[in-house]
Amino acid sequence: MTAPQFSTISLDIEDGIATIWLDRPEKMNAFTPQMKDELIAAFDHTDANDDVRAVIVTGRGRAFCAGADLSSGGDTFDYDKREGVDGRRDGGGQTTLRIFRSLKPVIGAINGAAVGIGATMQLPMDIRIASENAKFGFVFTRRGITPEAASSWFLTRTVGLSTALEWCYSGRVFPASEALEHGLVRSLHAPDDLYPAAVALAHELTDESAPVSIAMTRQMLWRMHAAGHPMDAHRVDSQAIISRGRSADSHEGVSSFLEKRPAEFPNKVSTDMPGFFDWQDEPPFE
Amino acid sequence: MTAPQFSTISLDIEDGIATIWLDRPEKMNAFTPQMKDELIAAFDHTDANDDVRAVIVTGRGRAFCAGADLSSGGDTFDYDKREGVDGRRDGGGQTTLRIFRSLKPVIGAINGAAVGIGATMQLPMDIRIASENAKFGFVFTRRGITPEAASSWFLTRTVGLSTALEWCYSGRVFPASEALEHGLVRSLHAPDDLYPAAVALAHELTDESAPVSIAMTRQMLWRMHAAGHPMDAHRVDSQAIISRGRSADSHEGVSSFLEKRPAEFPNKVSTDMPGFFDWQDEPPFE
Amino acid sequence: MTAPQFSTISLDIEDGIATIWLDRPEKMNAFTPQMKDELIAAFDHTDANDDVRAVIVTGRGRAFCAGADLSSGGDTFDYDKREGVDGRRDGGGQTTLRIFRSLKPVIGAINGAAVGIGATMQLPMDIRIASENAKFGFVFTRRGITPEAASSWFLTRTVGLSTALEWCYSGRVFPASEALEHGLVRSLHAPDDLYPAAVALAHELTDESAPVSIAMTRQMLWRMHAAGHPMDAHRVDSQAIISRGRSADSHEGVSSFLEKRPAEFPNKVSTDMPGFFDWQDEPPFE
Repeated sequence: MTAPQFSTISLDIEDGIATIWLDRPEKMNAFTPQMKDELIAAFDHTDANDDVRAVIVTGRGRAFCAGADLSSGGDTFDYDKREGVDGRRDGGGQTTLRIFRSLKPVIGAINGAAVGIGATMQLPMDIRIASENAKFGFVFTRRGITPEAASSWFLTRTVGLSTALEWCYSGRVFPASEALEHGLVRSLHAPDDLYPAAVALAHELTDESAPVSIAMTRQMLWRMHAAGHPMDAHRVDSQAIISRGRSADSHEGVSSFLEKRPAEFPNKVSTDMPGFFDWQDEPPFE
Repeated sequence: MTAPQFSTISLDIEDGIATIWLDRPEKMNAFTPQMKDELIAAFDHTDANDDVRAVIVTGRGRAFCAGADLSSGGDTFDYDKREGVDGRRDGGGQTTLRIFRSLKPVIGAINGAAVGIGATMQLPMDIRIASENAKFGFVFTRRGITPEAASSWFLTRTVGLSTALEWCYSGRVFPASEALEHGLVRSLHAPDDLYPAAVALAHELTDESAPVSIAMTRQMLWRMHAAGHPMDAHRVDSQAIISRGRSADSHEGVSSFLEKRPAEFPNKVSTDMPGFFDWQDEPPFE
Repeated sequence: MTAPQFSTISLDIEDGIATIWLDRPEKMNAFTPQMKDELIAAFDHTDANDDVRAVIVTGRGRAFCAGADLSSGGDTFDYDKREGVDGRRDGGGQTTLRIFRSLKPVIGAINGAAVGIGATMQLPMDIRIASENAKFGFVFTRRGITPEAASSWFLTRTVGLSTALEWCYSGRVFPASEALEHGLVRSLHAPDDLYPAAVALAHELTDESAPVSIAMTRQMLWRMHAAGHPMDAHRVDSQAIISRGRSADSHEGVSSFLEKRPAEFPNKVSTDMPGFFDWQDEPPFE
């Protein structure tokens, strides 16, 4: 598959790793409705392309994403006065719900300022690593609005309620060290080491694992961690392990282990996801 | 608005910060049915009074709250033999559910012993800071009863299941350092520095943020962090950001940012909370 | 009550502490369908036996549990080709759901390698402590299958989503130090100190607490920590504290405290659990 071309982002695929670059460096990668559409299309592509084993999201230039493009001034969040926006649904949430449904692991490589939607769009990514120069801000209350992009769900589950409330009440911008301390990011890196570290992590996560197993694992963990009772997980994973247990991947996985050789998993995400669950479904908005 | 007068607590309001003092120092601020009623009334006041930007709860004297008043001896928890108690509902839970619904940020300043309901009443507060002399005890199993005040929900979400179970099984009293280590409190302070630190934190959380945005943020994060799917959050925050985006607060928030001047937010919690959500609602008890 | 005899595990009861030994040391305690049945029967016994105050689970020999017995080779997880397995339900999940329903605190003492089901069977235990020689692996994706034993629910709630995803994507085996760092285990111990530490912890958790209070606390915290609203907890704990408040345990608990003497709690788990809640219920599988 040929990777599509975009205007506000770029999509590179190399050696099994897709990199999505937020790519408006002259605007500090400020978020626009078009960037939302392109991010959603990019994840549609990475899900469909079996050459992609993992996805990295990072920013071109010195910022990760400085937040919503404020070129409309005080009308920025006034959807009645804007064209090209969905007047019923928050565009940040449409983006994060799409990342939530990804069938490939997603790593955020936070290279610089990540403010507003630049901070909240990271939250449905599986793991975040950051440059020592990165900074973060959930600045919504200082702009007279509220946390968006479903961050009331994502952020509280990542860093706990107390830290999430503190960051969202004050709206202050804080350094990468504070993000590390509270578990928002996994590790800090010198600026030039960040992207190589993301690539190395992407390989570590996926190189020895079956692609269908990884895709199912991602959806099972993200969805079941919010379930009300472990029986919900037992119902899903009973079907998952029984359906995968009879697969060619499972026969190869156990045989290669017993024979002490690398596994060659034959199944593909595009064709071999089991049918008992709609892995890409989403509850209706209303 | 004039702050009401109470018997078992005191309510001071100064420079935008309300302080609720548990105020039975000769009884180590032991909890009574009257204290429950007065705490609920105090939060009704702080929610309604636009002069209040944040609430601090602390104890007068050397204890925070030594737990239920045991002056009824072995009959203390035998509601059949007590007057003035609701025979169907735990009074601690009525208190914590009221704090849960607060529209203003709530900081616990734990100045000394916090045992039983003195420990569990803190849990719906957003952030807890403590004196180095504080101590904590979830002592219910040692009194032959069970964790109350909805702490089975609040405590597990604050410190994780393993720590919550360990503290609640043994019922032992533990020092402030252990509370800090496990994330029950945010920081420790010398006794004389505790209250000033709480006031400084209250200002940091609220001084530069729109009051309506903060009130909505509090309810969105507390409620949505327990939702089953991020779509639940997306539905609420779509309405939240769209309704606030067209508000005078949002126009002022973006304009002041672009003009590099402090914001003057015109909207008030008492009159300007959007109507798409009943911010003070509560599921029925039965 | 006499402890039952088993083939793949052993059950010892001494001084109020039951120890379940995974007991196939020549097979590194590899998990079989028979071990599943015996573990479930062992927890049925420890729940019913009032002499048991807490349960320790550990492994005989140098491993905790090396995972599923792979003697069927590539057919190991192919339930169509295996006898003695339930073709609809994952056996690991049947085991962990039984441990979830335990009325006694459960401590995992992880003495060595804990891989696959050897890693996931620990997750419904309340607290895990480990030998410095222990190692852990959620290896499912490397075998071409998926996380089981309801671990999509249990693991994410124990270590958070990012760490759970990282461990489950890569399937790599990691050392005890990494388990400690991410909160999977509470503490590390020299190999010879591990079991004594587990016994000491079991006594610390239970010696001064009422058995019925502990049993109710376990179920309240495990179930309510996943509830959608604190009102759910308030409903349960109102009934719990009111029913225990009038019990002989509560009268003794408060009286002994006021008289500064050890409590002698008269109530028993086998006969005195309140009837307002079916403490052993489980949602139907389908």
